[in-house]
Amino acid sequence: MDDIDIEVVSDPDLTDPVFIEGLPGVGHVGKLVAEHLVEEFDGDLVRRVYTTDFPPQVTVDDDGVAELTHAEFHHVDADGQDLVVLTGDHQAASNEGHFTLTTAFLDVAEEFGCERAFALGGVPTGELIEDDEYDVLGARTDDTDREELEAAGVEFRENEPAGGIVGVSGLVLGLGARRGLSAACLMGETSGYLVDPKSAQAVLEVLQDLLDVEVDFSDLEDRAEEMEEVVGKIQEMQGGGGGMPSEDELRYIG
Amino acid sequence: MDDIDIEVVSDPDLTDPVFIEGLPGVGHVGKLVAEHLVEEFDGDLVRRVYTTDFPPQVTVDDDGVAELTHAEFHHVDADGQDLVVLTGDHQAASNEGHFTLTTAFLDVAEEFGCERAFALGGVPTGELIEDDEYDVLGARTDDTDREELEAAGVEFRENEPAGGIVGVSGLVLGLGARRGLSAACLMGETSGYLVDPKSAQAVLEVLQDLLDVEVDFSDLEDRAEEMEEVVGKIQEMQGGGGGMPSEDELRYIG
Amino acid sequence: MDDIDIEVVSDPDLTDPVFIEGLPGVGHVGKLVAEHLVEEFDGDLVRRVYTTDFPPQVTVDDDGVAELTHAEFHHVDADGQDLVVLTGDHQAASNEGHFTLTTAFLDVAEEFGCERAFALGGVPTGELIEDDEYDVLGARTDDTDREELEAAGVEFRENEPAGGIVGVSGLVLGLGARRGLSAACLMGETSGYLVDPKSAQAVLEVLQDLLDVEVDFSDLEDRAEEMEEVVGKIQEMQGGGGGMPSEDELRYIG
Amino acid sequence: MDDIDIEVVSDPDLTDPVFIEGLPGVGHVGKLVAEHLVEEFDGDLVRRVYTTDFPPQVTVDDDGVAELTHAEFHHVDADGQDLVVLTGDHQAASNEGHFTLTTAFLDVAEEFGCERAFALGGVPTGELIEDDEYDVLGARTDDTDREELEAAGVEFRENEPAGGIVGVSGLVLGLGARRGLSAACLMGETSGYLVDPKSAQAVLEVLQDLLDVEVDFSDLEDRAEEMEEVVGKIQEMQGGGGGMPSEDELRYIG
Repeated sequence: MDDIDIEVVSDPDLTDPVFIEGLPGVGHVGKLVAEHLVEEFDGDLVRRVYTTDFPPQVTVDDDGVAELTHAEFHHVDADGQDLVVLTGDHQAASNEGHFTLTTAFLDVAEEFGCERAFALGGVPTGELIEDDEYDVLGARTDDTDREELEAAGVEFRENEPAGGIVGVSGLVLGLGARRGLSAACLMGETSGYLVDPKSAQAVLEVLQDLLDVEVDFSDLEDRAEEMEEVVGKIQEMQGGGGGMPSEDELRYIG
Repeated sequence: MDDIDIEVVSDPDLTDPVFIEGLPGVGHVGKLVAEHLVEEFDGDLVRRVYTTDFPPQVTVDDDGVAELTHAEFHHVDADGQDLVVLTGDHQAASNEGHFTLTTAFLDVAEEFGCERAFALGGVPTGELIEDDEYDVLGARTDDTDREELEAAGVEFRENEPAGGIVGVSGLVLGLGARRGLSAACLMGETSGYLVDPKSAQAVLEVLQDLLDVEVDFSDLEDRAEEMEEVVGKIQEMQGGGGGMPSEDELRYIG
Repeated sequence: MDDIDIEVVSDPDLTDPVFIEGLPGVGHVGKLVAEHLVEEFDGDLVRRVYTTDFPPQVTVDDDGVAELTHAEFHHVDADGQDLVVLTGDHQAASNEGHFTLTTAFLDVAEEFGCERAFALGGVPTGELIEDDEYDVLGARTDDTDREELEAAGVEFRENEPAGGIVGVSGLVLGLGARRGLSAACLMGETSGYLVDPKSAQAVLEVLQDLLDVEVDFSDLEDRAEEMEEVVGKIQEMQGGGGGMPSEDELRYIG
Repeated sequence: MDDIDIEVVSDPDLTDPVFIEGLPGVGHVGKLVAEHLVEEFDGDLVRRVYTTDFPPQVTVDDDGVAELTHAEFHHVDADGQDLVVLTGDHQAASNEGHFTLTTAFLDVAEEFGCERAFALGGVPTGELIEDDEYDVLGARTDDTDREELEAAGVEFRENEPAGGIVGVSGLVLGLGARRGLSAACLMGETSGYLVDPKSAQAVLEVLQDLLDVEVDFSDLEDRAEEMEEVVGKIQEMQGGGGGMPSEDELRYIG
């Protein structure tokens, strides 16, 4: 196997497709949104990407069949807007692997003709978000229209995110800019302790606006309710009901 | 030395050989079974595989002679059924090394004409197995016959093993499937704390059935008795006799 | 992207330029001095150096625009003395990366015609420096003039720095010497716990003398005062005023 | 710089030279012996070996001159017996680096015409050696004469050293055997907590016999006395004089 091995599953002709990246990260926000898009619009698998920089691992499906760890591109037809959606279970394991892998991802997006991209993720606040006020922070390549992003609800704040953007989402912008891709990173605020479907909903609302499509949210809402029950139970166990779960407890959820 | 260096020791002609992988892992289950096959059927060393991804280390034999760390393939004639059995003391040290090494292993198996493979291992339960009820969990490539495996005693359970299968055993399926190898992984349940000859016996019973061979178990039974004495002594030292040894104690055995 | 990717921003003709290296390290001393030179003399960006051995990360500027992590060379015209100043936010992440990256840096310096170099850094003393007595320790390549360095205030002490010099600064000397670069490392004494603008000032004074230029210090003095306020507050919180902040407290500043 | 860079300092003609390896390891036993040989017989530097797998570091000599980390080969004329002695301050940092580096070392030894080798090291016993009974354990390549080694005082014990031999010393045997080098590893017993000149003396006595040379031991004896004073002081501080220093105390010496 080569360092990167891209398996072509199908090769649809797309019109002005937009590249959507949703690999795992803080709160699994990006992954939730990307998977939701694939499920809601019944996306078609178009590429499998294998790499020696993923863990040497297979997953086992319900029929006992093992499948080598990989990332997937789906074609999603969102009410006429073509999307090329990247999802998966892993980021790269090494610095160099991140660069090599993101380059391969951008090659695929380019091959499909994507000239715009959204890298989806979460930004950790370190505390539970109150009153469902999930802001969506943004970062962007130089040639995007900041006002258009702001009109869709993206906030740009000085010195945030403080540590920059690490991983594939960051590199979609950093490496994308160097090859002429017009890209924005949409980061839902999230505690950072939990898989966060509510933060995913906030990101999806912004994305809906930017892509001019409509998405059914009910599945994400169901998952959000499940998470709230989990948090509620932890709070009860703490004897208070009103008390915040401790960081240590939350770290093990999700 | 190249990254991978395969030394040809002998090159027997084999008939419908089956590839058996038994490198170290949870409970050393796979390794015990593979070594038992080599010993019981008096296997012949056919290949040594050296790699810079193994520890930079030699072992010293009883005559003081140092030998560079490597994995070994033996040809085993199991009552007329040709087996190509892979054993060794190490897995690869890096993600990439796992992929490179497993690819080399599959090349050797292919060279010998193996079209079927069994990757052997253990699956950790986190507690000592009671009443000698050692189940054998399975995973498989798509082109295997699930019912045949189940008839031999392999269990397929939804969402198990939970974290997928990591290491060479997983990749024998994952990379094997991509090159047309028909492979199953047989994983004996084991506490995960001890070298587990009883779990190895359970796997061997399934394998016996699948390969239609008969194997003498007495050596594994002896080793199992030795392990039970060890566990018994630990329990006595704990002052109880009935108490379970703590994880910390068990971690240092085997 | 290649392992190292050097972007040419501009290509000025320089006269007898001197290469100044100021990447992050102990007390950020080297980085403070190098950045101060670029700011005071209004340097021009001439090269961006990208590498897969930096973290896979973008920084986000005040307008929300993401920029891929890189090191920068600026041309600084210091009152007629041409300088080629290297700054950045990261050292390499691996042993090999340090060698590859420093080689690339030295290639750039050579391309601009630099035959002399100063690698700037800090040397940790493990305790706060008292009475503003910030000594500057030196190391050098064989073909430099030790007496000239000493006349400028550089101290050479037996067996110091005890552990040698690690990172890009060390390699500018070690690899530089092997290609005929005449280089010295100037290391300001610093506690090692804090970003240390006073140590940077001490290094800058030495450098001023060696380069025969004059630099306005006021910005560094302002930053030094800010740091003193921070230390003062910590001492107050300790209830003493006169007590030294503990190592643990200081470790988290800067 | 290449991954490995060998600098030819001089190229003497040698007669039946023997390769001696003494890089740092347990108790620094091998390094002490090798450096002692170079000093006693006034060896000449013949090669410097640089590698990107050593730390990115320079050492600074008494005149302030920085030198890039490297290993050194000296030619030692030991009363007419030519030796090629390898010393240095580091082992490789990675698995692969150990293999690459030892291969380079063996290439140099072969270039000088060495057909025999001694890899020197220590074997940790976990307790201080009493009554100056420092045994020297051995391991060897297949074509060496075990009885000759035993006659010189080398002991071969079943299952020792228990974990095999790790690092360059192990690979000198493991990789050496594969290219026809006749090699033995001489491992002085040592606590493993201290730099151990007494263990080095024991190894040197064996080596003296095997090479049929005589070496003045006084420098090693002086160093041994210094170490004994250090241990004595620790024992006094413990209030007992007769008590063994604890592992924790010893770990920080040497």
